[in-house]
Amino acid sequence: MITLEKIGSDAKKASVSLACAGSAKKNAALSAMARAIRENSAYIIEKNAEDIASARGNIKDTLIDRLTLDEKRINAMADGIEAVVSLPDPIGEGLGSHIRPNGLKIEKIRVPLGVIAIIYEARPNVTADAAALTLKSGNAVILRGGKEAIRSNKAIVDIMRGAIEKEGIDPNAISLIEDTSRETATALMRLNKYVDVLIPRGGAGLIRSVVENSTVPVIETGTGNCHIYVDSICDLDMAAEIVYNAKCSRPSVCNAAESLLVHKDVAEIFLPYVKEKLDGKNVEIRGCERTAKIIPCVAATDADFYTEFLDYIISVKIVDSLDEAIEHINEHGTKHSECIVTSSYENSREFLSRVDAAAVYVNASTRFTDGGEFGLGAEIGISTQKLHARGPMGLEELTTVKYCVYGNGQIR
Amino acid sequence: MITLEKIGSDAKKASVSLACAGSAKKNAALSAMARAIRENSAYIIEKNAEDIASARGNIKDTLIDRLTLDEKRINAMADGIEAVVSLPDPIGEGLGSHIRPNGLKIEKIRVPLGVIAIIYEARPNVTADAAALTLKSGNAVILRGGKEAIRSNKAIVDIMRGAIEKEGIDPNAISLIEDTSRETATALMRLNKYVDVLIPRGGAGLIRSVVENSTVPVIETGTGNCHIYVDSICDLDMAAEIVYNAKCSRPSVCNAAESLLVHKDVAEIFLPYVKEKLDGKNVEIRGCERTAKIIPCVAATDADFYTEFLDYIISVKIVDSLDEAIEHINEHGTKHSECIVTSSYENSREFLSRVDAAAVYVNASTRFTDGGEFGLGAEIGISTQKLHARGPMGLEELTTVKYCVYGNGQIR
Repeated sequence: MITLEKIGSDAKKASVSLACAGSAKKNAALSAMARAIRENSAYIIEKNAEDIASARGNIKDTLIDRLTLDEKRINAMADGIEAVVSLPDPIGEGLGSHIRPNGLKIEKIRVPLGVIAIIYEARPNVTADAAALTLKSGNAVILRGGKEAIRSNKAIVDIMRGAIEKEGIDPNAISLIEDTSRETATALMRLNKYVDVLIPRGGAGLIRSVVENSTVPVIETGTGNCHIYVDSICDLDMAAEIVYNAKCSRPSVCNAAESLLVHKDVAEIFLPYVKEKLDGKNVEIRGCERTAKIIPCVAATDADFYTEFLDYIISVKIVDSLDEAIEHINEHGTKHSECIVTSSYENSREFLSRVDAAAVYVNASTRFTDGGEFGLGAEIGISTQKLHARGPMGLEELTTVKYCVYGNGQIR
Repeated sequence: MITLEKIGSDAKKASVSLACAGSAKKNAALSAMARAIRENSAYIIEKNAEDIASARGNIKDTLIDRLTLDEKRINAMADGIEAVVSLPDPIGEGLGSHIRPNGLKIEKIRVPLGVIAIIYEARPNVTADAAALTLKSGNAVILRGGKEAIRSNKAIVDIMRGAIEKEGIDPNAISLIEDTSRETATALMRLNKYVDVLIPRGGAGLIRSVVENSTVPVIETGTGNCHIYVDSICDLDMAAEIVYNAKCSRPSVCNAAESLLVHKDVAEIFLPYVKEKLDGKNVEIRGCERTAKIIPCVAATDADFYTEFLDYIISVKIVDSLDEAIEHINEHGTKHSECIVTSSYENSREFLSRVDAAAVYVNASTRFTDGGEFGLGAEIGISTQKLHARGPMGLEELTTVKYCVYGNGQIR
C-alpha cells in the first residue's frame, strides 16, 4: 500500500502543475470525468454492491441508503460534475492592484489553496463532488472516505484518475487513501508538510475529532443547531409554515431547525397551532416548563437545547423578549442558520445585527442555507467557523491569494 | 486571579456589544487610549523598569532591548494607535447582495471575528498595537504576552481599559492573561467556546507550539526563510543591491533574505561581487560545494537551507536553471516572500506563477512585505498560511462575513 507521505508528496507535486493548468484543460478533464463515470456505471454498481453486502447488519438502514448507488444516483453524480464545468473559474482573478509611491506595483491575485484533504463518511457521491470542485479550483485533493464505502470510492476515484490522465492532468490531483484505519486519518490531520487545508464532512463526532486532533488548518463544517424565533408581532401563519418547513422538509440535514423560541405574548395562540402542523409528521416536542403548560410535550432538559437532533424532534422554549431570544441563540446555537419571524422593522434589524451566525434570516426557512440555493452553483460544505469562509463554500472559498510585486530595483 | 474561563466569557460578552459599536465610538475610544498612554508614560516606564530589572541576566541583551520602553517608544505606541483611528472601518461593509428567483434577498456583509487571542513574546509594544487593531475592527482581544514583560503589559492594558471604559466601551474588550505559565497558554489554545481565532506572534518555536497544540483556529504568522534568486540574465548591480538590502537592512525580521540562489551562468562574476558587499557587514556565507569553488565560505549543510537565521548569515546555492530555483524555493521556503532578479520577461512570469508564497517579487527587495509598505496602514502580523489571510494582515483580515437573508415567507 502507498504510504501517506507518498500520497501527500505526489499530491503536492500534482497541485503545482494543476495550479497553472488553465480553464480549458481543467474543463476538458471534468467533462472526461463525467463521461467516464457514466460509461463505467455498471462497474461502480458492482463494487458498490460489495460494499453494501459487507456493511449490511453492521450499520443502520438509513446509512445503507446513503451508501447505495444506482444508475440514477450515478447519473446525478456525473450531472454534478458537468455543472461544475459551466461555473466560472476563480483562479487568476485579479483582486486589485496599486502602485506604491516608490513605484512598486502590488497586485493581489486569486490562486488555489494547493492540496485539500477531505475526511468524510459513507456517502460515495461526496467522492465525485469533492474531486470536481477541487479540480476546477486548481487544487489537488486527498480523499479519505468511510470504510463502508471503500470499494465504491476506489472505483470512482480510479475512473476519474484514468479520465484526467488522458486529458494530460497528473492523476495524483485526485487521490484516495485506501487504508481507512483511524491511524491514517489521524496521520492525515498532521500532514502539514503537504496538506494546506482539511475539510471534514460528516456528523458532529467526526468534526469534533478533526478539530481536536488536526494540526493542519481546518474548515469546520456543518453542525447546525438552528433556531426559529417567533416574535411578538408577526404573521403566525407564516411562522407556522416556516417552522414546519425548517423542521420537517428534511430533518437529517444541517440547515434543518432544531429549536423553536416563541415570544410569551403569542405562545398561547401559536403553540397549539404549530403543534397541530407538526403532529402531521409525529414530531416530538421537547418543551420548557412554560411550554408544557400550553401544549402536551416531553419535558426538555438543558442538554436538549444544545442538541442537533437531525430527526423529527424539536426543542421549544418560551422567551420573554427579543433580547432573551438573541442571548439564547448565541449561547446554544452552532452559528449556522438562525431565523426570526417578525413584522417589526426594529426587531428584524436587531436580530440581524446581534445574532452571531453564518446566515441570519428574517421571515424565511433556514433550509435555504445551501450553495445551490444561495446561487454559488455548488458547494463543498457549509462553514460554521469564522476563519476563511463562512456559510456555503463554493469555488472561491477553495482559493487563497498571492501578492505579485513588480519592481525595478526597489530596496528599503 | 481571574480564571481563563471567566476572561473568555467576559471577552465574548464584550465582543457582542463592540460588534455594534460604530466607528465614531470606536475612534473616540482609540483616541482616549492613545491619550491615556501618553499621560501615564511615567507609570509605564516605572513598571517596565521592574520588568527589566527582573529579566536582566536571564535573557539576552537583544531581548532586553526589545523589552525596554522609554518616552520615545511610548510616544510611538500612542502614535500607532492614533494612526489606526484614521484608517477606514471595515465593519458593516457590504460585499454584495442579490435577489434569488424565489424573491429571497441575500446580502453578504463584513462583521468582526469576535474574540481574537494573541500569544506573543517580550515586546510590550505588541500589546498596544494589537489592542488598537482589534478594537477598530470590532473584536475583543485576549492578550497573552511573555512573562518578561508582564508588568509593562499589565500597566499598558490597565491604562487602555480605563480609557475605553470612560468612552462607554466594555473594558473586557481588552484583556490580559496575567498568569504567564505554559499551562494557561495551552488552555487558551483550547478555549474554543470563547475564542474565534488565535494569532501567535513570535519566533518559530512559539508558532510551532501553537500550531501543534491549538484546537482554536490559528493564523500562522511570520516565519520567513526568504530567497533571492539571481537569474542568468539580469542587472547584476541591481541584484547585489537587492541581496545586500534584503539580508542586511534588518536581519532579525521575517522578511529578511536568508538564502541566495545564483544561476550557474552568472555565478563566477556575481558571487565575488556580492561577497564584497556582504563583507561590509561581516555576513557569514554558508555555500554549497560549487559556491565554495568560487568564493571562500563555510560549507552549507542541508539544514542550513531550511534555516531562518535572523542574523548576518546567508546560505548560498548555485542552480543550473530557473526550474531548479523554483523547485528549491518551493521545497525549502516558508511561503513568505520570494524574489527573482531577472531581465527575462518569460522567467519573471514563470517565477511569479509557480513560486508558492504569500508575496512573490520581481526585481525588488523582500523587505517590502509589510502592512505599511503594502499600503494597508497597519498590520497585526504576516500570515504564512493560506487559509483566511495571506501576507500582511490589516483590519480587513480581522473580519469575517455574515449572510443576511431577507424573506417574506419563503419555504423550501
